[in-house]
Amino acid sequence: MRKHIIKNFEELINIREDWRRKGRKEILEILEKGLEKADPEKAIKRHLKLKKDCIEIKGEEIALNKFKRIFVVGGGKASAKMAKAVEEILEDRIYKGLIIAPENVKSKTKIIEIRIGDHPIPSRRNIQYTKEIIELLKETGREDLIIILLSGGGSALLTYPADKLELEDIAETTRILLKCGANIEEINTIRKHISKIKGGQLVKYAYPARTITLIISDVVGDRIDSIASGPTVPDKTTFKDAERIIKKYNLYGKLPENVINRIIRGVKGKVEETPKPGNPLFKKVINIIVANNFESLKTMKREAKRRGYRSMILSSRITGEAKEIGRLMAAIFNEVRETGNPIKAPAIIIGGGETTVTVKGNGIGGRNQELALTVANIIGGNGRIFFASIGTDGIDGVTDAAGAIVDAETKREGEELGLSIEETLKNNDSYSFFKKVGKNIIYTGLTETNVNDLMIGLILK
Amino acid sequence: MRKHIIKNFEELINIREDWRRKGRKEILEILEKGLEKADPEKAIKRHLKLKKDCIEIKGEEIALNKFKRIFVVGGGKASAKMAKAVEEILEDRIYKGLIIAPENVKSKTKIIEIRIGDHPIPSRRNIQYTKEIIELLKETGREDLIIILLSGGGSALLTYPADKLELEDIAETTRILLKCGANIEEINTIRKHISKIKGGQLVKYAYPARTITLIISDVVGDRIDSIASGPTVPDKTTFKDAERIIKKYNLYGKLPENVINRIIRGVKGKVEETPKPGNPLFKKVINIIVANNFESLKTMKREAKRRGYRSMILSSRITGEAKEIGRLMAAIFNEVRETGNPIKAPAIIIGGGETTVTVKGNGIGGRNQELALTVANIIGGNGRIFFASIGTDGIDGVTDAAGAIVDAETKREGEELGLSIEETLKNNDSYSFFKKVGKNIIYTGLTETNVNDLMIGLILK
Repeated sequence: MRKHIIKNFEELINIREDWRRKGRKEILEILEKGLEKADPEKAIKRHLKLKKDCIEIKGEEIALNKFKRIFVVGGGKASAKMAKAVEEILEDRIYKGLIIAPENVKSKTKIIEIRIGDHPIPSRRNIQYTKEIIELLKETGREDLIIILLSGGGSALLTYPADKLELEDIAETTRILLKCGANIEEINTIRKHISKIKGGQLVKYAYPARTITLIISDVVGDRIDSIASGPTVPDKTTFKDAERIIKKYNLYGKLPENVINRIIRGVKGKVEETPKPGNPLFKKVINIIVANNFESLKTMKREAKRRGYRSMILSSRITGEAKEIGRLMAAIFNEVRETGNPIKAPAIIIGGGETTVTVKGNGIGGRNQELALTVANIIGGNGRIFFASIGTDGIDGVTDAAGAIVDAETKREGEELGLSIEETLKNNDSYSFFKKVGKNIIYTGLTETNVNDLMIGLILK
Repeated sequence: MRKHIIKNFEELINIREDWRRKGRKEILEILEKGLEKADPEKAIKRHLKLKKDCIEIKGEEIALNKFKRIFVVGGGKASAKMAKAVEEILEDRIYKGLIIAPENVKSKTKIIEIRIGDHPIPSRRNIQYTKEIIELLKETGREDLIIILLSGGGSALLTYPADKLELEDIAETTRILLKCGANIEEINTIRKHISKIKGGQLVKYAYPARTITLIISDVVGDRIDSIASGPTVPDKTTFKDAERIIKKYNLYGKLPENVINRIIRGVKGKVEETPKPGNPLFKKVINIIVANNFESLKTMKREAKRRGYRSMILSSRITGEAKEIGRLMAAIFNEVRETGNPIKAPAIIIGGGETTVTVKGNGIGGRNQELALTVANIIGGNGRIFFASIGTDGIDGVTDAAGAIVDAETKREGEELGLSIEETLKNNDSYSFFKKVGKNIIYTGLTETNVNDLMIGLILK
């Protein structure tokens, strides 16, 4: 029997009614195909291949005997598993390596050293290990190959403050930026200009070695200058942009003095800018996304089709408040059932991205569980509709769950226990609701990857 | 030249860039097809036809000489225009009629009298005119035909408090129910049990005359027991349900004493229940929806196809916070552009329903304009994408606009004037934004119908 990625798979389909058992099995199995596609080992092995004494990457063959040594560095939630895959491909051709992973990773490597750092708030050890990576890169030369492994969380794990700045300056700046209402592009603009490595600056230490960056994207829309703050990607933003943002949100006197001073000096040209597009530093760098949300959705769509369903990908860029996004998704599922639009049942509708939860209650939950519970409320009693949503890293919000699966009976099951979905949602208590009802929470454990969330709806006739 | 329903049509397409002019023209013309489909006159004439001395309705032919007299009554935003259409079909075969319409309707009738009532808060004159309608129905007998015309707003315009209740009791109850967090089903359950006509009770006065109710639906999902509070539709809810809701939201001491007393007496069986499914009163009643959101969407889809676009209806049941729903819709448009999912460009994606705006700022706007502005923010700079959203009644929120049209350049146009969409949305000030930018606000004036909102996105290659 095939081993399931979803740990409680059998429990989730252990349901009396035939139709519910079947529908749940279908979408859980399709979800697993999506998770499999995001697996760092498989993703690396799809993109980086050894052929005789060449590596094949992006259709190009690069003779390994061109290089004196191969270095592997990186950071992120998936970096340990990515490192393991690179080792399995290149074996003892790797000269040295060091990656920074978060707590609880299980992947083991032989040559590449794994350091454990802190996430999402960077700590002193993160800086220490990042320094070690920079020292390693300083060893490299024109005749070497560097493989850089990046994934979600890399921005915190790979932390190295710019000159004259301390860890506290970085942490405080992030905290204030998150609070002031700045959007993620604005936050990244400032971050890149107070770091020694973000915004393409890591390449300064890698140059002139040949550099291949392998990326697992946890950024909705896959902007590679955003994933792990783009340490090997040209930066289009400037100190002037950073200053404009400080003015816009009136952050003078709020951001640490060191940070303000650095940006003022940057505007005056007294501090070096991040490397810009066209900078010759990037001539020897290639950035490759080896896994992302959309690839998982495509796999799921293919699998749905193979199983005989009409199927469509709604979007891989879904963001917004979970409770509201769930309303629209459920409205689509109900429309499929009632009128056969946008596609006729039996239909599978697939989505991806990352919703958010504005916490107002004091319950326990996560964005995927809240999304699923919202859908359950609106499809409740409405025939044979199923929905599941999971975080591909295996962690949904503050819970030990990856997400949840619901169907048109979930609402009734809650009501029989005296549980109101509306009240539960007001209290952001989706996890407790599902715990009481049973057979809804999806557990995968830590997957050591992250391509955001996968969502799937099934509408049977 | 064809006359446009959108009054400022020419201004909205008076744009220098060819592609913008063309895209805007396409979706505005398709929107007009959707509006046309919802026009009360056309909707009535599609469903009620005169053939020799028979009327044809729902495929059935009814000989008019069976009836001694024909009465026409009703209420709602569309009732005047519906009445006009019924008159044009049946001409002087109509014996008497009376409908209650809101201020500013322009439709004129010859036989059926039009009274002007207040909406959305019912007033004394609404009760007076509703009494007149009841008096008229009391004149009818077994040999008569009654045509009842219902549409959005009918619930307020047709107001008749149950015995021992006053207008103030009804208004105060509605106010408290809206504030306590009860959902629309719960609110309607109480409303039906403190009214003399809602929840099927109007049929008591119509019976035993043959009754045809023609309905224009402004209820998302078209539940006919909800449209105008279903005066001719069996009521599944009971006084016990009403009591349960009062308990749930702890409304004792909050709702007017008269209301609480009536419901307590109802539970004890001392007040007559609303007529339930199976009640013989309904044997001579037929309820027909002559226009709704989905019919308009289907027309728009057909028109999009005719013009050579790939096209789909996302859902006719879209509800939720405009700002969040806009995010998901824009995510779908961006996905079409980037990967050709769910359909390949050139594509038209159609939606309907009614979003909501949680007002936090003190700006001027409406749900359709806020939805459009959200979309503009996310598609900004992203190729050739267009979006429009309008309220089919011609009124969006507190503005004189029906809605707005935006494209991928709208964000930039705002920025050039120093306007930030994010700031505007925080202040719920979409109307002011569009006023300043120009060429975005859609004006139709009062359309005298309402089938909720129409949304349309166009993605060119």
